[in-house]
Amino acid sequence: MSVSQQVFLRDAMRRLNLTRDVFAARIGVKRRALDTWLLPEDSQEARSMPEVVERFVREIVENEALLQKYAQSAQSGPLRDRIAVEGKHQLLSVDQFSRESVEELFRIADLMQPIARRQKVSRVLEGAVLGNLFFEASTRTRVSFGAAFCRLGGSVCDTTGFTFSSMAKGESIYDTSRVMSGYVDAMVIRHPEKGSVAEFARATNIPVVNGGDGPGEHPSQALLDLYTILTEFSRLGKLLDGAHVALVGDLKYGRTVHSLLKLLALYRGLKFTLIAPKGLEMPDYILDQVSKHGHVIEQTSSLAEGLPGADVVYATRVQKERFADEQLEGYSAEFQVNKAVIDRYAKPETIIMHPLPRDSREDAHDLSIDLNLDPRLAIFRQADNGIPVRMAIFAVLMGVEGLVQHSLRDATWQSPSHVGPDDSAFHGLD
Amino acid sequence: MSVSQQVFLRDAMRRLNLTRDVFAARIGVKRRALDTWLLPEDSQEARSMPEVVERFVREIVENEALLQKYAQSAQSGPLRDRIAVEGKHQLLSVDQFSRESVEELFRIADLMQPIARRQKVSRVLEGAVLGNLFFEASTRTRVSFGAAFCRLGGSVCDTTGFTFSSMAKGESIYDTSRVMSGYVDAMVIRHPEKGSVAEFARATNIPVVNGGDGPGEHPSQALLDLYTILTEFSRLGKLLDGAHVALVGDLKYGRTVHSLLKLLALYRGLKFTLIAPKGLEMPDYILDQVSKHGHVIEQTSSLAEGLPGADVVYATRVQKERFADEQLEGYSAEFQVNKAVIDRYAKPETIIMHPLPRDSREDAHDLSIDLNLDPRLAIFRQADNGIPVRMAIFAVLMGVEGLVQHSLRDATWQSPSHVGPDDSAFHGLD
Amino acid sequence: MSVSQQVFLRDAMRRLNLTRDVFAARIGVKRRALDTWLLPEDSQEARSMPEVVERFVREIVENEALLQKYAQSAQSGPLRDRIAVEGKHQLLSVDQFSRESVEELFRIADLMQPIARRQKVSRVLEGAVLGNLFFEASTRTRVSFGAAFCRLGGSVCDTTGFTFSSMAKGESIYDTSRVMSGYVDAMVIRHPEKGSVAEFARATNIPVVNGGDGPGEHPSQALLDLYTILTEFSRLGKLLDGAHVALVGDLKYGRTVHSLLKLLALYRGLKFTLIAPKGLEMPDYILDQVSKHGHVIEQTSSLAEGLPGADVVYATRVQKERFADEQLEGYSAEFQVNKAVIDRYAKPETIIMHPLPRDSREDAHDLSIDLNLDPRLAIFRQADNGIPVRMAIFAVLMGVEGLVQHSLRDATWQSPSHVGPDDSAFHGLD
Repeated sequence: MSVSQQVFLRDAMRRLNLTRDVFAARIGVKRRALDTWLLPEDSQEARSMPEVVERFVREIVENEALLQKYAQSAQSGPLRDRIAVEGKHQLLSVDQFSRESVEELFRIADLMQPIARRQKVSRVLEGAVLGNLFFEASTRTRVSFGAAFCRLGGSVCDTTGFTFSSMAKGESIYDTSRVMSGYVDAMVIRHPEKGSVAEFARATNIPVVNGGDGPGEHPSQALLDLYTILTEFSRLGKLLDGAHVALVGDLKYGRTVHSLLKLLALYRGLKFTLIAPKGLEMPDYILDQVSKHGHVIEQTSSLAEGLPGADVVYATRVQKERFADEQLEGYSAEFQVNKAVIDRYAKPETIIMHPLPRDSREDAHDLSIDLNLDPRLAIFRQADNGIPVRMAIFAVLMGVEGLVQHSLRDATWQSPSHVGPDDSAFHGLD
Repeated sequence: MSVSQQVFLRDAMRRLNLTRDVFAARIGVKRRALDTWLLPEDSQEARSMPEVVERFVREIVENEALLQKYAQSAQSGPLRDRIAVEGKHQLLSVDQFSRESVEELFRIADLMQPIARRQKVSRVLEGAVLGNLFFEASTRTRVSFGAAFCRLGGSVCDTTGFTFSSMAKGESIYDTSRVMSGYVDAMVIRHPEKGSVAEFARATNIPVVNGGDGPGEHPSQALLDLYTILTEFSRLGKLLDGAHVALVGDLKYGRTVHSLLKLLALYRGLKFTLIAPKGLEMPDYILDQVSKHGHVIEQTSSLAEGLPGADVVYATRVQKERFADEQLEGYSAEFQVNKAVIDRYAKPETIIMHPLPRDSREDAHDLSIDLNLDPRLAIFRQADNGIPVRMAIFAVLMGVEGLVQHSLRDATWQSPSHVGPDDSAFHGLD
Repeated sequence: MSVSQQVFLRDAMRRLNLTRDVFAARIGVKRRALDTWLLPEDSQEARSMPEVVERFVREIVENEALLQKYAQSAQSGPLRDRIAVEGKHQLLSVDQFSRESVEELFRIADLMQPIARRQKVSRVLEGAVLGNLFFEASTRTRVSFGAAFCRLGGSVCDTTGFTFSSMAKGESIYDTSRVMSGYVDAMVIRHPEKGSVAEFARATNIPVVNGGDGPGEHPSQALLDLYTILTEFSRLGKLLDGAHVALVGDLKYGRTVHSLLKLLALYRGLKFTLIAPKGLEMPDYILDQVSKHGHVIEQTSSLAEGLPGADVVYATRVQKERFADEQLEGYSAEFQVNKAVIDRYAKPETIIMHPLPRDSREDAHDLSIDLNLDPRLAIFRQADNGIPVRMAIFAVLMGVEGLVQHSLRDATWQSPSHVGPDDSAFHGLD
């Protein structure tokens, strides 16, 4: 691009109305790198920017234009009103989202990336208190929500354990929820019983996020999964419309894949290959919902049939207890998603995902650890995305998403450029 | 009041030395509403303020004058010195309070209301750390203390579980308390054994709050109960002196009612009806203490006898295990405080309270859920008051109550006008 | 010192480049006291400073000069790079330290004292989140790390319990560590298995602190122990080089004494008396490491032989389970470190330490509570030092130690001059 590289970048910053610092943070590169790209071509220090940066910037600019169009045409009001549940600012199910609203959420998640990557600090929720109520153990999810709230400047009160002390004495969900609502400003609730979180939500007017209600929903997981797919595709220069997604493993009991499938169905012309062992197929009511949108669905129990051509391989664990003993024979080998399988059936730019945790023990029917150094393995980038997506959820439900941009300041402490020693080099683009 | 409404409000703001913003927050109304009341009467936008606001403002001004009188006459020094235990700034028992000091605490709790209601944020305790030590499960109380400390800007370190890991290895309360005192700036301690919190308190000079020591005391609960009665009475234009308070349920083992009764006895000319099943009557030593102050006490085991005329009905749970089986028959029906009973025996402005949790199961001897939509049910306003009262306790013990007013700034996030969907409209007055 | 007292103090402040306020905080005295020492000798308000202050200031100035010499000669870069583990900013073992680097860490801990003593507040880590992962219960250590991080302005997410929910489902340490690294900015990990924390550390690039890995290491404990010895010696006008340290109790299984011994061996010409019951002697590999540095080591099983002349008595608990029953007889009496023993064998300025918790039950083989009022008992000053030392560890690993000094502001709340009712008067020097 030689000379036009400077013009291109300057134009992008102007259209997005961003300073160099913020722009560099927005596209996840070092300010220093950006500066070298903006130097005159005859400068000794000048560098060409990688092509992927160009594509990324182009997409940001186009999306910005699109979103401004949405905003102007719709006069639609705050996102939280458009996804509200009976007028309340709560996130209970992925069914609350349209393609437009989910992409608006992700634009806010993008805004959170400089904070999530420890380049910037925001205190926009300073003074607010989150009640992080986990009636079922889930350290990972609990810490992810808690850290996300802290990174917005808020404080967190945790409760853990199968049962609340007072609920054991006969207190109703109604009372528990209403009393906690007087103490905190938002609640995340995880509970082993389907529908229980909705019951909590009905008893309060403050923001509630469903952190997983047994076999029900776990919407923040599905949202971060979709966000990961879109982010990875953006890096690869791909579009989600028309893509091929393979879902592997226990598709019957895994609530994660149910919610993800519903979100993916908001896009156009996807092909799904659902690869499950006999007896663990995706339930019909989900299939019906997806088919109505005109997507192609293929069901198989063979990796060899389902993986070829996939842009995304989404693996989940198959719990041994789910099988009758006679079926277990020979199953493990042919069903595990490992390096041999991926190298044989997948493409060079296929991305491999997993909701985690995965069972890393040798005899597990799960995603193998022999892919840990393969850059196609996106599971840790996916887990990392839990922070910006959950920050966006909180910001939207509490109505502060418009305050974040101007609340940013530099982080004082120094962070490693990559949090994982095996993180692929393209992560962060610097 | 037409013209004099403006004069009245301006005069009040001047006497209280408050800005419009702070004054609106002080009386719990929107700034916008206050502005319309202050407009000339011929303005199209002008509105009359509700009569209850007038009463509330009058009371605030009168209290302010009274308190200034106290302050001038006594030269009494900080509240924490006047309620101190052996020179230490600790809250172990309601016995530490006089009528004057408890009302001074509540004036500070009033100051906290704009923060507790999420209109304002204070960071006055920024940098301070609370040790929230719960050797007995009590999620509600733990979160209430924790959230109160966070809302003053502090950080919280929680410990939960029946036993501290190190105490199990033979560590004394003395060592545990002294070591924790080197880590944190204040401690809340809940412990199943009576007197244990006082033992903790003796081993440290930092502020300690008794969060409940088994059958002993739970002073912050009794304080928030009294604060609730005074706040509700203020709304209703009633005085506590001369009021009729009915205490219902297990009055023998319920430490809550013991402490509340002691606090109420600081007022003048009250009538108490103590309604307890046989064998669960209020202990004599408490009755003696209350009688000495000249209050009227009537004891009965019948709701029909004890409720009529009551300004406050304070219900508590009767645990089934407390009864011999033969007595249980027929008891439940005649003793449960439900809508039928309240409609039959109580007055239109009677307020119904409960320390919570209540047992909402059908066969429970407890306050019924069929009162949930009755505005006389004050249990959730009562629970909400845990935050401002506990904030006041921390502010007083740590000597920052004088800094709160000027530390206030607007909350950035948006909160629902009522945290509970069934909250009565008078709550918050806007 | 009369006139020269002013000159001495002014010269010290100039050399250290400190204001009066900061200088007073640095030496732990009230600004008011410092001001009186700086008055002309003929002033009525003028006061002589205690001799110990003079010694302390002399030592600070000398250390400062020494450190500047180190800094200039070495051009050594940030401390965290010099103690790094395979290029990572992690604290896994005391073996990472030299005498120079450990003293540099302590100089930073000194800087933290005004914060740890609640005179000052710093928010230098505002926005940062600590993952405080305790796979083994240790309330004291967990709260100490958490409070230290909070006092630097950060937020803390705790996990407790023997096992992480996801690890129970077969998740590897690699996955757990990498996922948590995407959520938080630093991790403290305690785990019952030796080597497990190093395994966590290998899977992440973010700062990791070993909070104890079973029989392995617990480096922050050994560091705060050494810091305590140096601080107490400074108060007493003693040098560690050439001192006599007696270690008492279970020297075989106590990881604390192993790590402390290694750190003490960095100094010159020490004499160690290792007083352990038969079968619980210090392992040979530690002795070899210490002997190589030319220190004198004497082993005995008798307090009467080992204590006389000791400058430091470091007691640890002997667990009953460690003995065969026949040996237990008569053991307790002759091995307990109590007032009678100390008065008989120790010097007036001997300091008595213990890693805590100690077993305060009557029949315990541990440090006796009858020394609680003896100013030689340093165990609570030692525990208090956990805060500044752990603050220093975090500040160094996260690269903010240079920002602390200028981030200080006054604490708003009021703290007792001594946190413990029995604290000796020299603690804090004011």
